[in-house]
Amino acid sequence: MANLQDVAQRANVSKTTVSRYLNGSLELPKRTAEAIDAAIRELAYVPNAHARRLSLGRSETIALMVPDIATPFFSTFVAAVEAEADRRNLSLSLHATLNRREREISYLDHIRQGRADGLIFITNHFGDAALAEKINTAGPCVVVDEDVPAARVPKLFCDNEAGGHAAGRHLAESGHRHFLFIGGVDEMISGARRYAGFLRGIREVAGAGARVERAAGPYTIAAGRIAARDFVARGAERPTAIFATSDELLIGLCEVLHESGLNVPRDVSVVGFDDVGPLHLFAPAVTAVRQPVRELGKRALELLLGHKPDEHGTLPPEELLPVTLIERNSVAPPTGSA
Amino acid sequence: MANLQDVAQRANVSKTTVSRYLNGSLELPKRTAEAIDAAIRELAYVPNAHARRLSLGRSETIALMVPDIATPFFSTFVAAVEAEADRRNLSLSLHATLNRREREISYLDHIRQGRADGLIFITNHFGDAALAEKINTAGPCVVVDEDVPAARVPKLFCDNEAGGHAAGRHLAESGHRHFLFIGGVDEMISGARRYAGFLRGIREVAGAGARVERAAGPYTIAAGRIAARDFVARGAERPTAIFATSDELLIGLCEVLHESGLNVPRDVSVVGFDDVGPLHLFAPAVTAVRQPVRELGKRALELLLGHKPDEHGTLPPEELLPVTLIERNSVAPPTGSA
Repeated sequence: MANLQDVAQRANVSKTTVSRYLNGSLELPKRTAEAIDAAIRELAYVPNAHARRLSLGRSETIALMVPDIATPFFSTFVAAVEAEADRRNLSLSLHATLNRREREISYLDHIRQGRADGLIFITNHFGDAALAEKINTAGPCVVVDEDVPAARVPKLFCDNEAGGHAAGRHLAESGHRHFLFIGGVDEMISGARRYAGFLRGIREVAGAGARVERAAGPYTIAAGRIAARDFVARGAERPTAIFATSDELLIGLCEVLHESGLNVPRDVSVVGFDDVGPLHLFAPAVTAVRQPVRELGKRALELLLGHKPDEHGTLPPEELLPVTLIERNSVAPPTGSA
Repeated sequence: MANLQDVAQRANVSKTTVSRYLNGSLELPKRTAEAIDAAIRELAYVPNAHARRLSLGRSETIALMVPDIATPFFSTFVAAVEAEADRRNLSLSLHATLNRREREISYLDHIRQGRADGLIFITNHFGDAALAEKINTAGPCVVVDEDVPAARVPKLFCDNEAGGHAAGRHLAESGHRHFLFIGGVDEMISGARRYAGFLRGIREVAGAGARVERAAGPYTIAAGRIAARDFVARGAERPTAIFATSDELLIGLCEVLHESGLNVPRDVSVVGFDDVGPLHLFAPAVTAVRQPVRELGKRALELLLGHKPDEHGTLPPEELLPVTLIERNSVAPPTGSA
């Protein structure tokens, strides 16, 4: 694995220059900075473990980046990290990136300049190589919820595949054979894995005869409304069961179903994902796959504090936390079935 | 109004010492630091306006402290500040204090040490004089949502009194004469003002004959459940209408009413406050006073950036944003009325 000396040699500067550049104590001419960045990228250099490791001293600050703090899933996750940080006497500095790459990069640069001693990072779009490189050189870091494939740091996700599987089995066991999956794209693991699990669950019960359609988009109320309007417009050709894979998609879906006079579960069965919002009070109470959001927050900080970067360059393992299907009143056999 | 020279004289140190102590660039012996703190307190000194004013340069960081980031009201508020900060090319550093005074003080000390160029502060408990003093010396600051009475900074609230008034009038006009108010204590302006407005609205319609009871506690789901269980236990002696003055109190209330088999609005009418959560999807959809939460976030940052501390020591004015009653399906005439 490349070390500081290798980077310095390739960039044709001293070790001290690289070190001070990385910790933000040195402003460099653009060309020199670019040469160092290129060397880091080409050598897949990860800053020395012991030099950057969290010391757990009393004034340590952990940075936490989330795409959208207004989403109950993220805000509850943040609250869980905050509670755990408080228990360990750490300060927490939160940054909402609005799910925009340039804002993520800008905050990552802040952190690289020594404004935090560790980072918990969540993005909600496909994380590219340049973003991964910033993460790899930001110091101790954990990636949570959605993957940044080229990031060489510990990763923590909920078991998306198992969640999709539970939803698919449950709907197929209720007699459904025509499904609509509303959720993320295949480039994001939440989309790919929930969809793969959903298909597997349905096929286990219904075989190859089942028909599954997919509406892909961001995890927003607006995207839920769009998918729901397309669904309503199809009339008799509609699927009989919908898997809306976030609380926000579900809210948008429920709004449009209400407005259209369609009844859940009489006209269509619905299963949600996240279950952080008050779905138990909805009309009807919505069956959903519950994410272990508070456990994710607690575990993310534990992973960050406990992580020893691997000197041999192997990727740290990915950790999955289990999800649970919470059955309520939004699923029934399709109309016309026995 | 006291200036830096007055503080230095009283603390028996140089002006430079006070200045460097306040901006965090000087570590002082405990006794000296205490002498300066005492002088600041006794003279009600507020740091010089121009020296601490936001320069709006490109790397400015605004700090934002909220009690509980998991509450949709606060998380939506934070998202609105973040969006406005993004528009102005400012960085935002968020801190969730868990509504604990010592954690607020600790983050305020961070900010005082120059880790932020301005502060938007929200507490959700009664803010005492020591907390106010930290706020008064933290640099440019705006207090939002709940008052810290001794803080000499601009303040921004929703129009709590008007919200209570609208709820009271609406329930009284529907025929109710026996009410339960679930909400904050009189030491907090949200509690005092919503309650005062509620009484005024009821009296306008129903005169002095109306009976209003009050269950005071924090704005949490747990407190909503406790108040609701007391309510249910009273049987025939129950009020016929409830004003639950936060989304969390409302959720706790609705859970217990569902569990008890009581129907809204047949058995009891309910009005909420905040209306940030998806109350329109509840069974039944809940009538509520809507807080202008996104406008509060945007306006808080504007106030912070636009504020020129008053050299003459007069208190900056308090600004109120209007609220709106959103009528849905949770209010009906009391059973037995015409």
